[in-house]
Amino acid sequence: MTHRIAILGASGYTGAELVRFLATHPGYAIAAITADRKAGRPMAEVFPHLRHLDLPDLRRIEEVDFSLVDMCFCALPHATSQEVIRKLPESVRVVDLSSDFRLRDVASYEAWYGKPHAAPELQATAVYGLTEFYRDEIKDARLVAGTGCNVATGLYALLPPLLDGAIDPDEIVLDLKCGVSGAGRALKESLLHAELSEGWHPYGVGGTHRHLGEFDQELSRAAGRPVEIQFTPTLIPANRGILAAAYVQGDADAIHRSLATRYASEPFLHVLPMGAVPSTHHVRGSNLVHLGVVAERRAGRATIYAVLDNLAKGSSGQAVQNANLMLDLPETSGLTLAPVFP
Amino acid sequence: MTHRIAILGASGYTGAELVRFLATHPGYAIAAITADRKAGRPMAEVFPHLRHLDLPDLRRIEEVDFSLVDMCFCALPHATSQEVIRKLPESVRVVDLSSDFRLRDVASYEAWYGKPHAAPELQATAVYGLTEFYRDEIKDARLVAGTGCNVATGLYALLPPLLDGAIDPDEIVLDLKCGVSGAGRALKESLLHAELSEGWHPYGVGGTHRHLGEFDQELSRAAGRPVEIQFTPTLIPANRGILAAAYVQGDADAIHRSLATRYASEPFLHVLPMGAVPSTHHVRGSNLVHLGVVAERRAGRATIYAVLDNLAKGSSGQAVQNANLMLDLPETSGLTLAPVFP
Amino acid sequence: MTHRIAILGASGYTGAELVRFLATHPGYAIAAITADRKAGRPMAEVFPHLRHLDLPDLRRIEEVDFSLVDMCFCALPHATSQEVIRKLPESVRVVDLSSDFRLRDVASYEAWYGKPHAAPELQATAVYGLTEFYRDEIKDARLVAGTGCNVATGLYALLPPLLDGAIDPDEIVLDLKCGVSGAGRALKESLLHAELSEGWHPYGVGGTHRHLGEFDQELSRAAGRPVEIQFTPTLIPANRGILAAAYVQGDADAIHRSLATRYASEPFLHVLPMGAVPSTHHVRGSNLVHLGVVAERRAGRATIYAVLDNLAKGSSGQAVQNANLMLDLPETSGLTLAPVFP
Amino acid sequence: MTHRIAILGASGYTGAELVRFLATHPGYAIAAITADRKAGRPMAEVFPHLRHLDLPDLRRIEEVDFSLVDMCFCALPHATSQEVIRKLPESVRVVDLSSDFRLRDVASYEAWYGKPHAAPELQATAVYGLTEFYRDEIKDARLVAGTGCNVATGLYALLPPLLDGAIDPDEIVLDLKCGVSGAGRALKESLLHAELSEGWHPYGVGGTHRHLGEFDQELSRAAGRPVEIQFTPTLIPANRGILAAAYVQGDADAIHRSLATRYASEPFLHVLPMGAVPSTHHVRGSNLVHLGVVAERRAGRATIYAVLDNLAKGSSGQAVQNANLMLDLPETSGLTLAPVFP
Repeated sequence: MTHRIAILGASGYTGAELVRFLATHPGYAIAAITADRKAGRPMAEVFPHLRHLDLPDLRRIEEVDFSLVDMCFCALPHATSQEVIRKLPESVRVVDLSSDFRLRDVASYEAWYGKPHAAPELQATAVYGLTEFYRDEIKDARLVAGTGCNVATGLYALLPPLLDGAIDPDEIVLDLKCGVSGAGRALKESLLHAELSEGWHPYGVGGTHRHLGEFDQELSRAAGRPVEIQFTPTLIPANRGILAAAYVQGDADAIHRSLATRYASEPFLHVLPMGAVPSTHHVRGSNLVHLGVVAERRAGRATIYAVLDNLAKGSSGQAVQNANLMLDLPETSGLTLAPVFP
Repeated sequence: MTHRIAILGASGYTGAELVRFLATHPGYAIAAITADRKAGRPMAEVFPHLRHLDLPDLRRIEEVDFSLVDMCFCALPHATSQEVIRKLPESVRVVDLSSDFRLRDVASYEAWYGKPHAAPELQATAVYGLTEFYRDEIKDARLVAGTGCNVATGLYALLPPLLDGAIDPDEIVLDLKCGVSGAGRALKESLLHAELSEGWHPYGVGGTHRHLGEFDQELSRAAGRPVEIQFTPTLIPANRGILAAAYVQGDADAIHRSLATRYASEPFLHVLPMGAVPSTHHVRGSNLVHLGVVAERRAGRATIYAVLDNLAKGSSGQAVQNANLMLDLPETSGLTLAPVFP
Repeated sequence: MTHRIAILGASGYTGAELVRFLATHPGYAIAAITADRKAGRPMAEVFPHLRHLDLPDLRRIEEVDFSLVDMCFCALPHATSQEVIRKLPESVRVVDLSSDFRLRDVASYEAWYGKPHAAPELQATAVYGLTEFYRDEIKDARLVAGTGCNVATGLYALLPPLLDGAIDPDEIVLDLKCGVSGAGRALKESLLHAELSEGWHPYGVGGTHRHLGEFDQELSRAAGRPVEIQFTPTLIPANRGILAAAYVQGDADAIHRSLATRYASEPFLHVLPMGAVPSTHHVRGSNLVHLGVVAERRAGRATIYAVLDNLAKGSSGQAVQNANLMLDLPETSGLTLAPVFP
Repeated sequence: MTHRIAILGASGYTGAELVRFLATHPGYAIAAITADRKAGRPMAEVFPHLRHLDLPDLRRIEEVDFSLVDMCFCALPHATSQEVIRKLPESVRVVDLSSDFRLRDVASYEAWYGKPHAAPELQATAVYGLTEFYRDEIKDARLVAGTGCNVATGLYALLPPLLDGAIDPDEIVLDLKCGVSGAGRALKESLLHAELSEGWHPYGVGGTHRHLGEFDQELSRAAGRPVEIQFTPTLIPANRGILAAAYVQGDADAIHRSLATRYASEPFLHVLPMGAVPSTHHVRGSNLVHLGVVAERRAGRATIYAVLDNLAKGSSGQAVQNANLMLDLPETSGLTLAPVFP
């Protein structure tokens, strides 16, 4: 059986990445793709790399007949997403890629985003989309909230040792190096090639990054008590990829064992041998995560590394994986593309 | 039925790219992969981006039992290739990715490569691997010679109008902009990141580039008389992609019609609307070719543009496409991955 | 004696590059820098790489007291420039970096830019700023029109052999590979890092590029009769640099001799030995031009290569060189910085 | 008075960078440049970006008449350096850019480098070259040991707050993001453009990086007791620059005050306003350091950022600054070039 899908917000990078994964997916048929400001245009104009595909033209959300849609991927900007999703018919299942439904707590949402949520009743029911840790809930969910790409990278490194009590929850420093596509296709001076190429710098520093709310929620849940990490992302002059370095206090071997055990049967998560370190280059374009653990020279200190492709496993690949689960398709379907190297 | 394949020279970029395309190909099973200097090591060490795949360890060519191999992809260096292929059992069909069997003429080979060919009897029987122009011969060939990646890009732009008499064969200037992976994984100072990034320069100038023998052979065949083009490649600070600009004399509309007609039913070749220009970014990682034609302001002058991914359609993707044909598999099997953008 | 200067439009890349050259120049004192939309802000905010310099804050053009200014560098956008310059007091000498005063012919300007010039009387008196070919006129000029960066690169390759009759003026194909900073700091989707990095494509194709009017004017003047070249620029994923490949018909040795002779005593122009090719990497950040000539295999055909840094010798470095001449300072003053490699 | 200098090891990136700074320096005349494997060749062949300079040909060290040399810049590889320097006449003053003389302690050297030092008597007298902290000793030194580029970046961030007791010496995590030119011009697969571009990864992890000995020495000296930091460098796909993020425990305001006070009159060190973060792009090609301090959301936690150009302030610029001091020249002479942006 083929499921009919809609992709809302298909003129951004995560939208295009969804099409890349879904266009050749045997289980889905793309019924509608939308982009309000580019409505009426063929996708080949907006993303010429998809011109070989037989896709419907872009249209406005209002023009979509959702009664013909089984699954809706929502790649709209933050805040817009909640307005749109609250109006979708109950029959449509939804994977949201924005940050709108990641925080379960109404107050926490308001604190981090500075205004009340427009669909608090949906917020309460949304399932957090980190597949490997919410698999059962995702299967039955109507609405899955895709994780932040930075957060996913950090959580893959930190959740197992936190769950297993292998690291001190009060002493976690997380340093992320992020490719620029995570910032989207917005017209900002700071995202111009001339501004970025050959230069790199931190951003969202000092505990102000909105992803921290998401980190707090998930890390505290794993630890069974409040956890606040120190977190800095750095923008790297490259398009795809996130590298997380989590500086932790705990026994390196125990941490490695924790990761290896919990991810032993995961199709996309690969734990490198003890002491080996991963590279973003080795997961680019794929739904894979590579993880490594290194013992530091000071006893009881270790560093956990994780890499993924922010547009794939960090957002659109994760979304497809979750949709597969929701629709009872093979979980890895459409996602077995090997990384593109070099 | 699954065909058993061997990949010789799997520690180079074209070898890794073959694995990328073949590992999930339903029609093939990888029986052996070789790399003499890295024999005994797992592929995951040599190419960590392939660590999720269940691959045999690298071994020496001598260790391969070719009686268990149906199809051999030969990604060895020039000159080595002919020595190896001449010793393969007749039962094994071969797609060679080196330059060893591209030139049909013994004297031409000797002139361009400076020494006699070690397997002239095979040289005579090898079929040139530009799929769309040699499809029938490829189906029945035992040995297919993969084209040069630069040459493929130029030929896709030039062959149709030459065959149709739409351009002057004596007035062709071909300017190529090439990503660095085409130069392979060799340790050369000129290929270091610090030497290349943020800089670009021509190479192989002045009619000395060995690819010219290949151009001469195929363009002359298409024109029905000797053709010698003027050709300069420029090395671009990026990993994948070739952009060809062919400056020609002829009517732009006729040229566009020639391309559009001859490529109308080709699954991987896409001719853009008249006046539109392609980008290497829009074919990266895929087996696609995008072509464009622009009329110049001087009457009777036009420019033809073509882009492809040198590691995909320019070498390893082409090799898989040809192997599919040789083995009577669907021609596009394993090759429908969309480009990775951004 | 120190000359008081103003830089109009200092929030763009050419403006910043002017400051880079001028801030440590012994002959100049920066009296005013302007940027209308960023007026009131310190330069350190707009260009943090200049924060160590003691610069006046940005202000609006209207706020500048031009009676205290000897020399005005005008780095404003096209069309704005002519409006501003026509109102400057006669006592102020001007180096304009826009395209507004490059075309001497009123009709030609209107044809290429689609509207009448706002200051035709100034247009007639402006001197074209290609220093080495207009040195005497520049010394006495009140208004010098900086060349296009693409055009400068092409002209350095083509003017000597045209002046010496060493090439056929009717058979010139000029292929340019251009870094992205030439497109300025404008917020365009096509200039985002994610769109450009790892991809390259032609632009301004088909004889529509406005720089062609400038090429026509200067090449025709050198040849003594109308010259129309075929010209394509390609955008390269790197920040600085232009590489010109001029495919010409003529004797390579004669062309090389022509360049070597005419540039023999030029401080910034260096002709490589016959057959050697230049790289943009070797002039980056400097006011240098490297040129090379290669004989093609077809008799009577040759290729001329030229490289420069579009922000330096292609615009702001050239502007300083011209200002030095106008103010009777040593021509190379402030411009002897070596290229930054790697 | 002009000082006669020799540059040993001029075929590497730090050697070329020394020439870039020194060629136009009014206080120096380059008497000899050496490169054993490239002896006899003109510098223009080895580094074409320096072809406009009037430089002696490269020669072997043995061919240099050191009686005509006042100051020797030694840019030789580790271990070679100590062998060469011990044989130089006492009359020649030396700035060494290798790691050979950075560690003052014989045992520490042997522990980190795995063999005894060949010139322990010199080792004891060498002055550590971090200019701002050893200025007086450098003035009188015969031999100055240039710092590691990674170490310099970290020390600029950490020394002031350690000296002022503003941070806990036991809780320092230092995460460095480093451009590739710091790895030199060696032919390693891992330094190829195709391997690095679009990918990033940690290296020298787990307390094994030799720079740690240098960190231990200088940080312990500042703290007045043993300090062992946790340190990870990550290789970034760009050529120049290092960004240090030092995660520390201490009051952010006190840290900022410490940096601002101690660097208040330093010509090359600039402390950004509280909360602002630096970018490597804004110091590239210059001798500048930009520093920033950010308060974390957890009380008593802060992050200190520092950026510099590894080839400039991190090695060759620092070397020139120290030589200026040793020869009683103005300290900033030859080093006031503004950064190259973009």
